Amino acid sequence: MQATEGLLLKLSLAQINPTVGDLGGNSAKILEYAALAAKTGAGLVVFPELAVCGYPPEDLLLKKHFVADNIKALDVLARKIRGITLITGFVDSDSAGKIYNAAAVIREGKVQDVYHKHELPNYGVFDEKRYFSAGQNSGIITVEGVVIGLNICEDIWVDGAVYRAQAGAGAQILINISSSPYHSGKLKEREELLSRRVKETRLPLVYVNCAGGQDELIFDGGSMVLAADGQLLARAPQFEENLLGVDLSSSKNPVAPVLDSSEEIYKALVTGTRDYALKNGFKKAALGLSGGVDSALVACIACDAFGPENVTAIAMPSPFSSRATRQDARALAKNLKMELREIPIKKVFSSYLKTMHRQFEDLAPNIAEENIQARIRGNILMALSNKFGWLILTTGNKSEMAVGYCTLYGDMSGGYAVIKDVFKTKVYELARFRNSISRHPVIPKSILLRAPSAELRLNQTDEETLGSYEELDKILMAYVEGHASPGDIIASGMDEKHVRQTVRLVDMNEYKRRQAPPGVKITPCAFGKDWRLPITNRYKE
Amino acid sequence: MQATEGLLLKLSLAQINPTVGDLGGNSAKILEYAALAAKTGAGLVVFPELAVCGYPPEDLLLKKHFVADNIKALDVLARKIRGITLITGFVDSDSAGKIYNAAAVIREGKVQDVYHKHELPNYGVFDEKRYFSAGQNSGIITVEGVVIGLNICEDIWVDGAVYRAQAGAGAQILINISSSPYHSGKLKEREELLSRRVKETRLPLVYVNCAGGQDELIFDGGSMVLAADGQLLARAPQFEENLLGVDLSSSKNPVAPVLDSSEEIYKALVTGTRDYALKNGFKKAALGLSGGVDSALVACIACDAFGPENVTAIAMPSPFSSRATRQDARALAKNLKMELREIPIKKVFSSYLKTMHRQFEDLAPNIAEENIQARIRGNILMALSNKFGWLILTTGNKSEMAVGYCTLYGDMSGGYAVIKDVFKTKVYELARFRNSISRHPVIPKSILLRAPSAELRLNQTDEETLGSYEELDKILMAYVEGHASPGDIIASGMDEKHVRQTVRLVDMNEYKRRQAPPGVKITPCAFGKDWRLPITNRYKE
Repeated sequence: MQATEGLLLKLSLAQINPTVGDLGGNSAKILEYAALAAKTGAGLVVFPELAVCGYPPEDLLLKKHFVADNIKALDVLARKIRGITLITGFVDSDSAGKIYNAAAVIREGKVQDVYHKHELPNYGVFDEKRYFSAGQNSGIITVEGVVIGLNICEDIWVDGAVYRAQAGAGAQILINISSSPYHSGKLKEREELLSRRVKETRLPLVYVNCAGGQDELIFDGGSMVLAADGQLLARAPQFEENLLGVDLSSSKNPVAPVLDSSEEIYKALVTGTRDYALKNGFKKAALGLSGGVDSALVACIACDAFGPENVTAIAMPSPFSSRATRQDARALAKNLKMELREIPIKKVFSSYLKTMHRQFEDLAPNIAEENIQARIRGNILMALSNKFGWLILTTGNKSEMAVGYCTLYGDMSGGYAVIKDVFKTKVYELARFRNSISRHPVIPKSILLRAPSAELRLNQTDEETLGSYEELDKILMAYVEGHASPGDIIASGMDEKHVRQTVRLVDMNEYKRRQAPPGVKITPCAFGKDWRLPITNRYKE
Repeated sequence: MQATEGLLLKLSLAQINPTVGDLGGNSAKILEYAALAAKTGAGLVVFPELAVCGYPPEDLLLKKHFVADNIKALDVLARKIRGITLITGFVDSDSAGKIYNAAAVIREGKVQDVYHKHELPNYGVFDEKRYFSAGQNSGIITVEGVVIGLNICEDIWVDGAVYRAQAGAGAQILINISSSPYHSGKLKEREELLSRRVKETRLPLVYVNCAGGQDELIFDGGSMVLAADGQLLARAPQFEENLLGVDLSSSKNPVAPVLDSSEEIYKALVTGTRDYALKNGFKKAALGLSGGVDSALVACIACDAFGPENVTAIAMPSPFSSRATRQDARALAKNLKMELREIPIKKVFSSYLKTMHRQFEDLAPNIAEENIQARIRGNILMALSNKFGWLILTTGNKSEMAVGYCTLYGDMSGGYAVIKDVFKTKVYELARFRNSISRHPVIPKSILLRAPSAELRLNQTDEETLGSYEELDKILMAYVEGHASPGDIIASGMDEKHVRQTVRLVDMNEYKRRQAPPGVKITPCAFGKDWRLPITNRYKE
């Protein structure tokens, strides 16, 4: 195969984890990986989309000095590159002040070529048309005598986009640099897409993704190379940084396995939580441990992300906390070797009730008293965070966030909402998965078996209020992720009353979600940048 | 003037206040205004952009049933229209599933013409490319023999856009329907723009805007008609609903005055607060009253929005609250005829300190203890909200929000952040303005004269921590609204240390702003949809 002759027989996919805005740090990392690649004898090393500035830079792109500094960083970087060709993403600008999502081709100390992304995604979590102008150039570059069709992320997703013109123009190989956000099963979607493109173009395809977390987005790596016959030649591991050296003439390149669904999601949650903390200067985390399954799962994720010695669990029992959940919290902490502190909230709660006595008069206790307890817990956790510099992890799941079964400024208080995009039924799956990978199950069985309860009043269970989680999650998947109408969901066989109640709750709780901390996106539609519903909204189907 | 002959001599600009998603309510309002317009003998009545579904519908547009229901609502509406031509905004869709920001021309019970917006704004608060396809049709329609160039909002803002082609194609008059969000001075910007378009095209121009609030956006009305010679023929009042009847042959049409800057902003704040409450089902509001200028201003706005009988002020003194601020809070409440309740937080605070004693050990009191107090207040306000159904108004200003001089889950707790887009220096201006319009000043002078303090520890003043507000606000205006670099701000003559500190604080407090409640946008760049900075961000100039 002509395409793979010469030095280009050996190339390196540099699946790095940049940090948004860290121009110096990202450049240093690019140099480090380039040096490693050169040592392996690779003729070309390829970095992800916007690797110089991190993805997505969002409104940093509106700062002219940011764009200028990123170009400066690229130029400084370029001057240090010898003996290897380097492709990396950066932000380019033109004399009219337009900016482009761009790829630079660097060789012998110079930026030799620049490609501007043609297709700008402006849906889901993406706002690229807010910032970038669409590119016009061909993306045809020649490296060591090999003609390459170079394109960026969305360029390969849009049918008939620039990759096709590049194939028509004589490209011998396609290279796509991406920063492609994760959701469950995304790697499989990408492989299917890329193999369709290979079939269309009959060209080998190099796909370089980044790894790591940025606020709510996780980049799951899985960079890969497909041969012209569609065969998978090489694949980097998911979620981790990796320098994937590929010999295009060999059939013995590294092919990292694809993780099982639960393991993949679990790893996404660990990665997102760890990166949010570390990139924002936190080394220690804390969380409220109730003895329920949500906080148990978050405790496992925290211990896996930071090491149990860096995690403090806080049990904050109230008069409504059962002996059983308190014991379970202790057992879990012991199993995880995580410090557990008990801070009962009874006395503070009584002092609130005394203080509010004249206000509440003879009105029956209701949601107000329940929320006071949740907010005392939030206050205690935040006070510990303020005193000791811990990142507080919240423990609410997606089912709760969807229907507003959570207390604003109470259990929603914290820096990162680890499982806010994980449905309750999936929480159980992940808890069982986590138990399956350690010698002894760390999460006590009783946590997995007990009926979920917020324990904010006597004998409360979630499912009395919300209906069965099994059914609730099905309704939510259709309504939230599928944008289905209540009528269509009912027609699909779900209980009408349950559907109507759930939809009403989702609609009326937008104000709570708007004030939630960020958390890991693991579904195609998380309650983040991909969910932009108005708070003021009288629409009823 | 030919353009204005026939029935079109008389037309009505229906400056209504739709509610997002309220298809039935908006349609009923359109019918009501159309009937009123017909009674005045108008041949044409014109409604704002997306009046049928409200603006901006955001991700409701991703629901196929929402788009279908809005088209149904338009058809039902159309069947009821006789004896007048009606133009209104709605969402159109085509057989390929594309949707358009559209204007329908309705006559004799039928939709006779549809125009699709060409220019889709995708900057600032706008995300129209996320949803809509760009229109291709001409917008040339004929009503009663008059050739009209019909276009929508952004179509008139972009130089050389469709309005020019319409003029070239023989239009005798231009009609632009808008839902144009307010910021301070926007009406003047619009008038200047429209008068440039009239000069370019030599055509009279009818501009219809909506009124009222939608989450963070305020629509300030000010619909207007310019004659072909550039003269302002008619203008509707700002912020209010209005049916502006215009006789194009007369020089005696209503021309509402343009409000002074302070009055305009004050009215925007009242309108936004009232509409957020009413459209979300709240009739009563409450706020924490500290005796400082921020909460004093918010109390005035709340009383003007809801009537003082529907506002409850809560004073929550701590051991650090001075006698003077407590007296001022009482005087203000008395002046406003607003109920004031005092709920001291000392006992609850001591119970927290006791509960946290073993945790905090012998560490010196710091921000943790300060924040506990702010969060006790937040908990008390939210408990009252939960018990009595009051909307809690927060009282933080833009200077504080910018530098994070506020407590997450503390003073940031509430449903609506009335002055979150008002700089501290502007807060004083507005307070003085409010004092100037009532017979006796309602805000005690001492509130305006005392050095601002959070009163969370002894002898604290804001300016010790933040530097002078006068200078701080100048730095913030340049950095936040101007996206200027710290270097440029320093070069403009500001103190380097103050600039660096301020920029650092703005950057590191993104996580707080992300969890703030919504509030009225009054500047070109509010901390809302127009401010999309990453939380994880290591960029330093």
